[in-house]
Amino acid sequence: MPARPDHGPPTRIADLDTPRLLLDRERLERNALAMRERCARLGVRLRPHLKTAKSLDVARIAAGGERLGVTVSTLREAEHFARAGARDILYATAIAPNKLARAAALQQETGCDLLLVTDSIETVRRAGAFASGAGVELSFLIEVDCGEHRSGLPPADPAVVEVARAIHAAPALRLRGIMTHAGHSYGTDDSGSVTLLAAAERDAAVSAADAVRAAGLPCETVSVGSTPTVLLADHLTGVTEVRAGVYMFWDLAQLSRGMCRQDEIAVSVLASVIGHNRAGRSLVLDAGALALSKDLGANRYLPDAGFGYVCDPVTLERLGSLSVGAVHQEHGTVTLDDEAWFSRLPVGSLVRVLPNHACLTCAAYDAYDVVRGDAVVDRWARVNGW
Amino acid sequence: MPARPDHGPPTRIADLDTPRLLLDRERLERNALAMRERCARLGVRLRPHLKTAKSLDVARIAAGGERLGVTVSTLREAEHFARAGARDILYATAIAPNKLARAAALQQETGCDLLLVTDSIETVRRAGAFASGAGVELSFLIEVDCGEHRSGLPPADPAVVEVARAIHAAPALRLRGIMTHAGHSYGTDDSGSVTLLAAAERDAAVSAADAVRAAGLPCETVSVGSTPTVLLADHLTGVTEVRAGVYMFWDLAQLSRGMCRQDEIAVSVLASVIGHNRAGRSLVLDAGALALSKDLGANRYLPDAGFGYVCDPVTLERLGSLSVGAVHQEHGTVTLDDEAWFSRLPVGSLVRVLPNHACLTCAAYDAYDVVRGDAVVDRWARVNGW
Repeated sequence: MPARPDHGPPTRIADLDTPRLLLDRERLERNALAMRERCARLGVRLRPHLKTAKSLDVARIAAGGERLGVTVSTLREAEHFARAGARDILYATAIAPNKLARAAALQQETGCDLLLVTDSIETVRRAGAFASGAGVELSFLIEVDCGEHRSGLPPADPAVVEVARAIHAAPALRLRGIMTHAGHSYGTDDSGSVTLLAAAERDAAVSAADAVRAAGLPCETVSVGSTPTVLLADHLTGVTEVRAGVYMFWDLAQLSRGMCRQDEIAVSVLASVIGHNRAGRSLVLDAGALALSKDLGANRYLPDAGFGYVCDPVTLERLGSLSVGAVHQEHGTVTLDDEAWFSRLPVGSLVRVLPNHACLTCAAYDAYDVVRGDAVVDRWARVNGW
Repeated sequence: MPARPDHGPPTRIADLDTPRLLLDRERLERNALAMRERCARLGVRLRPHLKTAKSLDVARIAAGGERLGVTVSTLREAEHFARAGARDILYATAIAPNKLARAAALQQETGCDLLLVTDSIETVRRAGAFASGAGVELSFLIEVDCGEHRSGLPPADPAVVEVARAIHAAPALRLRGIMTHAGHSYGTDDSGSVTLLAAAERDAAVSAADAVRAAGLPCETVSVGSTPTVLLADHLTGVTEVRAGVYMFWDLAQLSRGMCRQDEIAVSVLASVIGHNRAGRSLVLDAGALALSKDLGANRYLPDAGFGYVCDPVTLERLGSLSVGAVHQEHGTVTLDDEAWFSRLPVGSLVRVLPNHACLTCAAYDAYDVVRGDAVVDRWARVNGW
C-alpha cells in the first residue's frame, strides 16, 4: 500500500511544496525508546506530554505498543486523544471554570479517566457545585510550585491540605493526588543544577503528598516532570509518574542546554530559497515568523541559533554556520559568511531549518510530513487550538 | 436568522470558552472605512493585504461593497480568496519555483488574475520554462528594495531592467509592473520619519518603473505599501496602488508607533483567570505563548506592553496598568501592582488581552468570534498555513 495514496507512490522530500513541517520517523522512534528505557531504569511510570506533538501517531510511538496514560495541555487535545481511545488523560493546565462542562461531557462521551488540575479553592467550589448539579464526578490533582513560580501552591502552604480537604469533602469530586512541574529546568545548561532542580521537584511533590496523607486524605498520584529533570534526576522515590514531551522531537533550545545531540532533533521545517539579496549578502527563505515562530529561547546558550539552523534538505547536516537571522511574517533571512553560498544554494534550492523551540514551531502546522531519509512515508495530523 | 445558528440565540462574551480570538465588528468597519477614505484622498487604489485577517468576511468589509483586488502572503490564501470569487490577486511574497504549478492550477481553475512577484532571474527562467511547457501564462511584478533590505533589487540596479527584459521576452510570461514594501516603516515612532520613508518607497517604485518603461517595456502596475507609509505619505504620484493590512485590526505595535488609538484595536484574546499566585503576586491566565504569540514588537516604544494589555472583557478598557508579563505554552502571567486585583479578578474571571502583533496572534486561531459590544454575533473562519 503506498504510504500517501492520494499522491501515488511515496514522495521524495524534493517533491514537497514549502514550507512544510518534516518529522524524521527513525529519530522519533529512537527518542521515544530512550525515554521509555530511562523511566524503566528510574522505576517510574511515563505519562508522555503531548503538547509538543499533538498527534495520535506520535502518541502511539511514544507508548511503544503499551497502553500508556497521556498528558495534554488543552481540552481539545484531551478530546482528540480520548475519542481515539485514550483512557487515562491528565489535562495538566489548571482548568478554567468555564471548561468544566466540556470536561464532564468528554468523560461521559468516552468513559475516559480525565484528571484535572487546580491550585484554587474557588475552582474547587465551582467544580463541586457544577458536578453535583450535573450528576457527574470530576477528579483533581492539586498543583504545587517546586520553584518555577508560575503556578501552584507552595508545597508547605497549609492551603494544599485545605484544597485537598475541600475536594475530598465535595460529594462529586475525587481527590487523586499532587502534581508539579519544574519548568525552570529549561533555564540552565548545567547538568548538576538540573539534578538539584529534579530533587527539588520530587521533594515538593512528595512532601505535599505526605502532608495530604497525614491529614487522612487519599493521594494515589504523585506526578512530576519536565524532560530535563526526568533525564537527570538521581532518583524519584515517592513519585508515581513523570511527564515529559519535548524529548520526542528535541530542538535547538534543548541542544543548547546539553539535553540532546543535534542528530537527535526529529523535527525541521522544509523551506525554499526564494531570493538572493546580493546587496545584503543574504538568502531569502519562504519560512518566516509564522513558519518558524518568533521563539528565540535557544540563543541564551547557543548564540548562533537565531531562528534556526539551516541544514541540508536530505542529510539534515548544518550548512556551514548558516542560521536564520531575521524573520518577517513569510520571509526568513539567512546572512552569509561567504558569497559562495549564492552558487551553492541557487534560488529554488531546498533547505531544512532545525527549530528553536519545537512546541512553538510545530503549532503553525496542521500536519507532519513524516520522512525516512529522503522518502516521505506518511502524513500525520496535528490537533491545534483549543 | 440567528447569527450563530449552531448555538441557538446570539451568545454573550461571558458564554464563550477560552482562549478565543474576538473581533469587534464596529471597530473593524470604522478602520476599513478610514483607510478607504485615506486612499481616496491620495487618489490611489487600495489593494488590502489579507495576511493579517486571512478571512473572507473581513475582506468583504475591507472592500466596503466594491470589487477590490486583494493582496495575499501565501498561496493557500490565494486559493481561498480566488475560490470565493476574488478575481484580482497579488501574491506578494516572491514565489518559490516549486509553487509555480500550484499557482498556474489556481489560475486555470478559477480564472483569477494572479500577480506573482520575484527579484530573481533564476525564477524567471524556471517560470518561463514551466509556463511554456504547461501552456499557461504567468504574470509577474518585479520586487525592488526601498530600504528595508529584506528582499528586492536595488531600484537603480541594472538587474531590474534585465529581469524585466527576461520576463517580457518569455512567450508565456507577462511583465505587469513593479512592487516594493517599506516594512522598515514599523521601525520608528516618529511620524516625520515615516513620511520620509513613504517618499523613499514611492520614489523607489516609480524610478524602477520609469527605468523599465525607458527600456521600452510595459509597466502598468506600481504597487507600494505598508500601513504607516500609506497613512503618512505626502503624495503618491506615479503609484497605481497601495497595499496595507494591519490597519483593519491594529495592535499594540501600531499603537506604540502612534499609528492608531487604543480604542481602535479591533482584535483581542478572551482569556480566563485560572489561578492566583499569591506568593508571586500574579494572576495566571489560560492564554500563553500559543494564544498570544511570543512577539514583543510593541515593547520597543511601549515598554509596559509585555505580551499584551489586560482589559475588561466587555468595555475593552485596560485594567489599571496590567499586562501579560510572561508566557509559557498555555499560561500567561500577569504581575499585579496591587493585591486588590485578587478580589477584583477572582479565579474564573474573564479578561481580554490586546495583542502585541495582530498578524502573529491571530495565526493561532482558526476563527474569529465576532462581537458587537457584549454580543457574539458571528463566527468567521481564517485560512492559516500554506
